[in-house]
Amino acid sequence: MTIASVADVLAGKYSVGTAVKVQGWVRTKRDSKAGLSFVALHDGSCFDPVQVIALSNLANYEDITRLTTGCSVIATGTIKQSEGKGQSLEIEGSAIDVIGWVENPDTYPMSAKRHSIEYLREHAHLRPRTNIIGAVTRVRNCLSQAIHRFFHENGYMWISTPILTASDTEGAGEMFRVSTLDMMNVPKTENGDVDYTQDFFGKETYLTVSGQLNVETYCTAMSKVYTFGPTFRAENSNTSRHLAEFWMVEPEVAFADLSTIAQLAEDMLKYVFKAVLEERADDLNFFEQRVNKDVVKRMKSVVDSDFVRMDYSEAIEILQNCGKTFEFPVEWGVDLSSEHERYIAEEHVGAPVIMQNYPKDIKAFYMRINDDGKTVAAMDVLAPGIGEIIGGSQREERLEVFDSRLAEMDLSPEDYAWYRDLRRYGSVPHAGFGLGFERLVAYVTGIANVRDVIPFPRTPGNANY
Amino acid sequence: MTIASVADVLAGKYSVGTAVKVQGWVRTKRDSKAGLSFVALHDGSCFDPVQVIALSNLANYEDITRLTTGCSVIATGTIKQSEGKGQSLEIEGSAIDVIGWVENPDTYPMSAKRHSIEYLREHAHLRPRTNIIGAVTRVRNCLSQAIHRFFHENGYMWISTPILTASDTEGAGEMFRVSTLDMMNVPKTENGDVDYTQDFFGKETYLTVSGQLNVETYCTAMSKVYTFGPTFRAENSNTSRHLAEFWMVEPEVAFADLSTIAQLAEDMLKYVFKAVLEERADDLNFFEQRVNKDVVKRMKSVVDSDFVRMDYSEAIEILQNCGKTFEFPVEWGVDLSSEHERYIAEEHVGAPVIMQNYPKDIKAFYMRINDDGKTVAAMDVLAPGIGEIIGGSQREERLEVFDSRLAEMDLSPEDYAWYRDLRRYGSVPHAGFGLGFERLVAYVTGIANVRDVIPFPRTPGNANY
Repeated sequence: MTIASVADVLAGKYSVGTAVKVQGWVRTKRDSKAGLSFVALHDGSCFDPVQVIALSNLANYEDITRLTTGCSVIATGTIKQSEGKGQSLEIEGSAIDVIGWVENPDTYPMSAKRHSIEYLREHAHLRPRTNIIGAVTRVRNCLSQAIHRFFHENGYMWISTPILTASDTEGAGEMFRVSTLDMMNVPKTENGDVDYTQDFFGKETYLTVSGQLNVETYCTAMSKVYTFGPTFRAENSNTSRHLAEFWMVEPEVAFADLSTIAQLAEDMLKYVFKAVLEERADDLNFFEQRVNKDVVKRMKSVVDSDFVRMDYSEAIEILQNCGKTFEFPVEWGVDLSSEHERYIAEEHVGAPVIMQNYPKDIKAFYMRINDDGKTVAAMDVLAPGIGEIIGGSQREERLEVFDSRLAEMDLSPEDYAWYRDLRRYGSVPHAGFGLGFERLVAYVTGIANVRDVIPFPRTPGNANY
Repeated sequence: MTIASVADVLAGKYSVGTAVKVQGWVRTKRDSKAGLSFVALHDGSCFDPVQVIALSNLANYEDITRLTTGCSVIATGTIKQSEGKGQSLEIEGSAIDVIGWVENPDTYPMSAKRHSIEYLREHAHLRPRTNIIGAVTRVRNCLSQAIHRFFHENGYMWISTPILTASDTEGAGEMFRVSTLDMMNVPKTENGDVDYTQDFFGKETYLTVSGQLNVETYCTAMSKVYTFGPTFRAENSNTSRHLAEFWMVEPEVAFADLSTIAQLAEDMLKYVFKAVLEERADDLNFFEQRVNKDVVKRMKSVVDSDFVRMDYSEAIEILQNCGKTFEFPVEWGVDLSSEHERYIAEEHVGAPVIMQNYPKDIKAFYMRINDDGKTVAAMDVLAPGIGEIIGGSQREERLEVFDSRLAEMDLSPEDYAWYRDLRRYGSVPHAGFGLGFERLVAYVTGIANVRDVIPFPRTPGNANY
């Protein structure tokens, strides 16, 4: 007997008349007055459940009438054309074995009624059983597979940069400390400082905030590389766009300038959006109907658009002369806020925008100084409907320029000794970007809060499960 | 002008006579008495460098004679048949631009001479530029892509289980604490304990040791899932097989028993070995010649073998009656050590062995108790040449049995409330396994120490870079 996934049955992989076994959980069950029951069975393989018809002559029909949402069953039967609306194939059950009951259906947290997204978040261990989080899970998987495929097909190597790091690359204020020291009895040095030489790694150690600096070492040997791994921020931000633990995708390309990675960002986004449009039409249909009516339209529009390149300085002029009043005033040198980015992408251009060449004072120390001396070769990809989704830059590969930048920012060359080595030995122009994976999933699904697109969200005060 | 990777040039993707640009780093340079130079250029895309011929009529020929290992260049030229030995295609350079010099060739840490693997480890930021670590990087990438592809093609969803966790699943002794508390001034409760309510997550938080318990929640909704992410052990083990930070692959399958995942483990290993044999013959050839002459042979043998299933109890009998003296004595109930595992796999069977049904007292609390009451449905895959490479089990899905196991092991049901819920609501038989990714890379490459198959190894006293 073939064990068939619900997806394969509904997709018509087996012809009518084939005997199959399907295994899963009851989404709903309905008893007909005609003395038969309809069991909607899901197994996670696709959005729709398959309908299994239980005739009253089944030996355990009494049990079947007692099935409730969440019970697990193994159904054996024959595939037939459905006479009902909504789906074309169903299964006429010859045996439906109940594998696991729901302890108390009245208090089952994932009962068939509609639950708020906040309620589901409080039951993160059971929420994948719902339509919405099941759909998020398939879309998230589809996106991650498409990202690996895109880079692999284009000759990039996946590099696992370290999660634990003693390099404090972007300011320890937002980093989590990792330690095995006894907190009840923290060892101290003679000076009264914490004695980290007694810690597991012999020095103060943190969770990484980005794999970029590390992956540059592999970029300057393998040419085309990317990371795809978890990163961490100990930021006390309770917003819908921030997580303390999130996944980042960070490609880094040797012999590349800003335009190379701007094109890479455009190609990558189009590739993954095409993949999800092709592979997850069922889930996207649900998000379009129930979550955000624009999700499919805006992805298709990104796929069909030529991304517009625009200099930061030009954007400032546009914003100053557009006649609109913004909450945050605009002048050259300020960081653009979401309202500015969305005005440019949604109202002024009406397509994804790659904003380039930002003032150096609002950007990181490793970005390449442009010839004007006041901007850096940085870029942000702004997508209609969400704003910034990707940020990247060309890296400063000239040792003298890099060293004066370190001095300017009061950073010590010794702390960046290994990073400087990449500029001392066969230095090359190189560039890369970072994509927050959860923000991508949120954009694709239309889900407003990134806490609902990662299995177990970590935020201030919450590390449950 | 086409920018070509070295791999594409050497693979004959462009016909002889095509003008191409290649970009990379000098591996070696040799000047001929005939007034021309041969530059071996690598770009990470494959094992072999491409030979670029520089005739003395190039405008910057003087510069070219000064090139040393590690310099970065962009070479433009025409593809031609090589007259030399070893490779069939080379590039006759029409321009060779030096992009980055090596500051002081005499002290360049990756000079062309042979370096010990320990020396390379001390220069982890530059070692990808060497033959051996370049090859490791390509093989590691190939294996990770093959793993994602295998699971994707078989209907599995990638699930990102949390890295930060407040669940102490396998004993906090080996876990890293993650905190933002001020170590100079640890807040205390009235009782004098550490006041973790003031910490970032409001409670004591650790780095995960395994995604298994978390991924079971998704398994019991999506049916077929897997994790592929970093895990951590704060174990003070300075061995060639242990890292404080390593990557794990953990599939979990619903409606599955031990035999399902034994077959899954066999299928997965064969799939990824086939992929690496097909895709990375160049790198494997190097490992076979320079590192371990058995690497290709033993992988091919795994691909062609039927894995042998053997009960733990049978293995004990074999070991007791084989007439061999072991360092650790054998009797029913002991954990098998490496010498036992290798005897069984290498000498007794001569093929991969899936050892099954271990005594419950040496296995974890979540493993399913067999009908004999004294063994659990656990399995280890033992591969000739390395020993245990995969460990897995069927999970205890029966609530009453699970609860008595918790009681027996003095664990509190409250601590496992969400895990118990999976057994209260539509429980299903399910099973899964864990594969230590670095041990897999070590097996495939023949490299003896896992510190050399991960970009930046973390071990006691070492979290550099």
